[in-house]
Amino acid sequence: MKIFHYTEHKPFPAKTLGIEDASGLSIRFLITQGDGAPNFAMMHLELEPGGCTPNHQHGWEEEIFVKTGAGKIKSGDQTTAICPGDVIYIAPDEAHQFVNTGEENLELLCVIPNNPG
Amino acid sequence: MKIFHYTEHKPFPAKTLGIEDASGLSIRFLITQGDGAPNFAMMHLELEPGGCTPNHQHGWEEEIFVKTGAGKIKSGDQTTAICPGDVIYIAPDEAHQFVNTGEENLELLCVIPNNPG
Repeated sequence: MKIFHYTEHKPFPAKTLGIEDASGLSIRFLITQGDGAPNFAMMHLELEPGGCTPNHQHGWEEEIFVKTGAGKIKSGDQTTAICPGDVIYIAPDEAHQFVNTGEENLELLCVIPNNPG
Repeated sequence: MKIFHYTEHKPFPAKTLGIEDASGLSIRFLITQGDGAPNFAMMHLELEPGGCTPNHQHGWEEEIFVKTGAGKIKSGDQTTAICPGDVIYIAPDEAHQFVNTGEENLELLCVIPNNPG
């Protein structure tokens, strides 16, 4: 068993992870295969005010819980406002982009399968 | 894509789910295989003040984020206090029990593999 506060895991700016076309995005890797987790990984995403993730898609699903902040998610022609407590299921191959529209960080918990690529 | 507030999914008292030896526990199923999620499920657990989950173990992992409240997790002879922002990785076959030691609900986000039994 591992127990720690999420702030004990440092945030990596997106560019240091090879993620292009993001603005003000950093990612904390909370639980990964390196911890022995056999199936899926939990991450903590932080977007600064005005920041955004890339508009992207991939062949695996994401399960997301909005922790703090205010923002929107774009998917194709659809844009939806999101707030703390919102749950988002992104199916494989669905385009998506998160944008922070608020004045504090937009923080998301995100779970993806291991070795999704 | 599915987007909704977690409160839109009603909490099921543990006893209605066949979970015995729990006190003040209810579970909201946020994302499941029924939504098309191919690999893992996200749940929202609420423990009333003084409430607890069963002391139990199972052959699959859990990845947990403490959302609100104050409590502790017991695992064998070890007891650890938990607070909002804590991340907990429970490996397969590790015994565990959550207890709410605070005065408000203890709320946990919990992710488990599909069809774990």
